Amino acid sequence: MPAAPIITITTDFGLDDPYVAIMKGVILGIMPGTTLVDITHSVPAQDVRHAAQIVASVWRYFPTNTIHLAVVDPGVGTRRRALAIESPHGTFVGPDNGVFCASLESQDSLKSGGILSGARGVELRSRRYRREPVSRTFHGRDIFAPAAAHLAAGVALEELGPAIDRLDCPAIAAEIDIGADEVRGHVVRVDHFGNAITDIPASLVAEHPHTEVRGLLLDGLARSYQDAEIVALIGSHGHLEIAARNGSASAQYGLRIGDEVVVRGPK
Amino acid sequence: MPAAPIITITTDFGLDDPYVAIMKGVILGIMPGTTLVDITHSVPAQDVRHAAQIVASVWRYFPTNTIHLAVVDPGVGTRRRALAIESPHGTFVGPDNGVFCASLESQDSLKSGGILSGARGVELRSRRYRREPVSRTFHGRDIFAPAAAHLAAGVALEELGPAIDRLDCPAIAAEIDIGADEVRGHVVRVDHFGNAITDIPASLVAEHPHTEVRGLLLDGLARSYQDAEIVALIGSHGHLEIAARNGSASAQYGLRIGDEVVVRGPK
Amino acid sequence: MPAAPIITITTDFGLDDPYVAIMKGVILGIMPGTTLVDITHSVPAQDVRHAAQIVASVWRYFPTNTIHLAVVDPGVGTRRRALAIESPHGTFVGPDNGVFCASLESQDSLKSGGILSGARGVELRSRRYRREPVSRTFHGRDIFAPAAAHLAAGVALEELGPAIDRLDCPAIAAEIDIGADEVRGHVVRVDHFGNAITDIPASLVAEHPHTEVRGLLLDGLARSYQDAEIVALIGSHGHLEIAARNGSASAQYGLRIGDEVVVRGPK
Repeated sequence: MPAAPIITITTDFGLDDPYVAIMKGVILGIMPGTTLVDITHSVPAQDVRHAAQIVASVWRYFPTNTIHLAVVDPGVGTRRRALAIESPHGTFVGPDNGVFCASLESQDSLKSGGILSGARGVELRSRRYRREPVSRTFHGRDIFAPAAAHLAAGVALEELGPAIDRLDCPAIAAEIDIGADEVRGHVVRVDHFGNAITDIPASLVAEHPHTEVRGLLLDGLARSYQDAEIVALIGSHGHLEIAARNGSASAQYGLRIGDEVVVRGPK
Repeated sequence: MPAAPIITITTDFGLDDPYVAIMKGVILGIMPGTTLVDITHSVPAQDVRHAAQIVASVWRYFPTNTIHLAVVDPGVGTRRRALAIESPHGTFVGPDNGVFCASLESQDSLKSGGILSGARGVELRSRRYRREPVSRTFHGRDIFAPAAAHLAAGVALEELGPAIDRLDCPAIAAEIDIGADEVRGHVVRVDHFGNAITDIPASLVAEHPHTEVRGLLLDGLARSYQDAEIVALIGSHGHLEIAARNGSASAQYGLRIGDEVVVRGPK
Repeated sequence: MPAAPIITITTDFGLDDPYVAIMKGVILGIMPGTTLVDITHSVPAQDVRHAAQIVASVWRYFPTNTIHLAVVDPGVGTRRRALAIESPHGTFVGPDNGVFCASLESQDSLKSGGILSGARGVELRSRRYRREPVSRTFHGRDIFAPAAAHLAAGVALEELGPAIDRLDCPAIAAEIDIGADEVRGHVVRVDHFGNAITDIPASLVAEHPHTEVRGLLLDGLARSYQDAEIVALIGSHGHLEIAARNGSASAQYGLRIGDEVVVRGPK
């Protein structure tokens, strides 16, 4: 017996309105017994890039038979396409606005220009697998949740619509500046604990263990949050992170998204 | 094999306290494997009418074997009755304070005066299906969750207590004023995105496509949120809605719950 | 067929970040079909004592085959131990920082000094049941979620590591002062409704039905929240609670955590 299918859900709908629950009802009506996992519904309204980072940070921890549904969709009702993409690492269902580009890049399923590589995509155009009539404002309910549920129920990807080979991925400038003696990056997220998470991967920190941010100089990498009042360390996501012991690095040291972070080699 | 039963949960308990989880533990102890779906736990404290609107907006998206449990219960411990109602569209379990009246009306299972029609109800008085001793303050745990779980496990409605044929539904004044040339309604909800949702159904807007609210004049209905800076359109719930492109209509234009909204015909 | 295993999750991670969902992905990858129940993720950051109270207030409502996973872990990456404890009332997985002491005490599975009694514990040291490499900062993902999932899948407790017989429990002073004519306790929690919950158990109130707090004198115990403007009653948790009718006792009467509460006998 195959494992029960899993559908994860990432939205900017919040938890006060019934929109997320409505999508779950639609899914369970099509595929009873589906395991539903909320990733977060606190994506800032219409912030596709934030949603893309969230999905890219979770897919690797789920079994490959998982369907990742993301509905952050400022273009709902316009001509933007609705997609499903099947890769060796999972299936992704949502609007064609870049929300899956970071995930597919991080698993080498996407070449530059948004071209799929080792993954198959379709545009969700088959009326048979939609909820008719399709509203202009809630494709999460009428297109994306039904598509995810039918895939969970075993419908073949090709049944959902015509094949596509390219996603609409925003050009993202290389944001890390790698010099001879130092690497310059930025704080890209501040989490619930006030930890400032950067875009500098662990591989670049090994040679440059000294961190500077907002005038703070942190010598060497800590091994745990308890090592000092304020520490630089490699977080669970594999990137450099600045954290305060038993407190908020963001609140106590004024660290914010966008702050430049420089790491330098040993002298 | 019948599909696994589904129980949805709507409360005003919030997510900080363990009350919702305690109800889930009670349910899973009685009926392991039940699919539990949170609708929302952010109903304003003791706001039965808000909860009634939420439940009425979700039941139609769930399979008919779903049990909708709603615990917004300012009268807990008083003489208000505890009910279960089985209709062709789902089963409803909660206090007899009006929380299910809008749902049952919207599916034609309720006649004026709160009289059940095509649905069967019981008062939850059988001690066998309660958690004894029943507390005075948490019937969600001791009466409603057990009743929902036993129904999910296949116990017949009649086992739970004596039949009733009438609910305690608050008289709700007709709030839409339908004139010869115009229809007057109100903003009844502002959602997470700042969209102002009215009580004017799509059927009344077809003939009156021009909207006025707080001095704003919006000519014609938009087809998507992207059509203009501020638009009137039919939302996913089937009612007139005022929304701002990539922003909050409520914050930018000062729209609030209770604002009068007038729609007029073409001239 | 045994009932599907249940894993409850209590953390201080909040709902905005993907950390909770990552733990769920890890669990479902090891044990598909596990029933996951969120207790709360709103524990104040690193507040182990708060988390301990939450877990102690829920375990009794879950079936005994439930695994309670709690990750509030200021000492992550230090030498604090990682534990799993199996008692007749459930299994507990988390750091050895006191987060399960109140639960085990309340079920008589712990003697003074943190010595296990009628429960078995192990330190989670078997590399086979971890996610390697183990990060320094997210043992929820790398140690605790895998341990809980392997236990749910039927792995024997002993497989996870060497036996322990003692937990690291903080000494908690007896906080209730029981005199000849009165009992003195405190407000220990204010819930979502503004109800002030005390540490005085129902058994001590029977003889002392008059309550004093912040100059308020409340004669006798109410039977429901509707009995008067402000009432003292036994809450669903079995302790004395002060509540306002249709309002917040905390906001209206200034009741706060730490306020002294005195109950006195009849005169």
